[in-house]
Amino acid sequence: MKFIASITLAAAAAALAGPAAAQFAKPEDAVKYRQNALFVMAQHFGRIGAMANGRVPFDGKAAADNAEIVADMAKLPWAGFTANTDKMSKAAKSEIWTEQAKFKEHNEKLVAETGKLLAAAKTNNLDNLKAAFGATAGTCKACHDSFRNL
Amino acid sequence: MKFIASITLAAAAAALAGPAAAQFAKPEDAVKYRQNALFVMAQHFGRIGAMANGRVPFDGKAAADNAEIVADMAKLPWAGFTANTDKMSKAAKSEIWTEQAKFKEHNEKLVAETGKLLAAAKTNNLDNLKAAFGATAGTCKACHDSFRNL
Repeated sequence: MKFIASITLAAAAAALAGPAAAQFAKPEDAVKYRQNALFVMAQHFGRIGAMANGRVPFDGKAAADNAEIVADMAKLPWAGFTANTDKMSKAAKSEIWTEQAKFKEHNEKLVAETGKLLAAAKTNNLDNLKAAFGATAGTCKACHDSFRNL
Repeated sequence: MKFIASITLAAAAAALAGPAAAQFAKPEDAVKYRQNALFVMAQHFGRIGAMANGRVPFDGKAAADNAEIVADMAKLPWAGFTANTDKMSKAAKSEIWTEQAKFKEHNEKLVAETGKLLAAAKTNNLDNLKAAFGATAGTCKACHDSFRNL
């Protein structure tokens, strides 16, 4: 019943909290949410990378399936960078909160690039996949360089 | 560069490993993947529950947005229950691996129910949402009762 209880708790928290923090029962959940969403995305992105880099044979169907998940997941993590979590993770630089417009721009860039990655994967052409994978990985790196420690 | 390095590692592991474990660089990643996907799903499912249970006002657009993520996420966790992870989590009962057909049936039931939940959410009708939320929560519970400790 732990599962049902936690849903009830989240619901109660959502009802009591203000709009900004309303999505998460507690700040720790927001941190966990963004980290978990990023991990799931990275797993699927890595599988596309394996094809783009020639480490596993190109499989157009697998590339498209993974790219679809990547494009879906790319939309999620940003909701977890709530104002009340600005001191909770060593990996997250304070610039996330002091340069919110720039951070948002990077988030939106990733959503756009992963959309292009999905379109490229659907062409069933390895060269297209390689180009889109490189562009997407560059977007990951640019955001990490500005907003992530480690 | 840690991110890029981990993608390279995952890709190398995928190339070297056999088909069953090919998706994850190491068993720990498979465990983390399924747990993370379930957590992200539960966050969004909880927001639908808050509306279904009357703790937050019904918002058809928000319900549909959350249901879409739930339906997408419901497909993912099961790939993380790889054979080499059967002793790695206290929450996961050994029956997951000894009763694979039954476990798979439960996984597919969740995918089906979350698909119905999305359809219900899109009707923009609270009674439909309540019914589908209850059915989906029952599917979660039935699987947890058989295959999850705690």
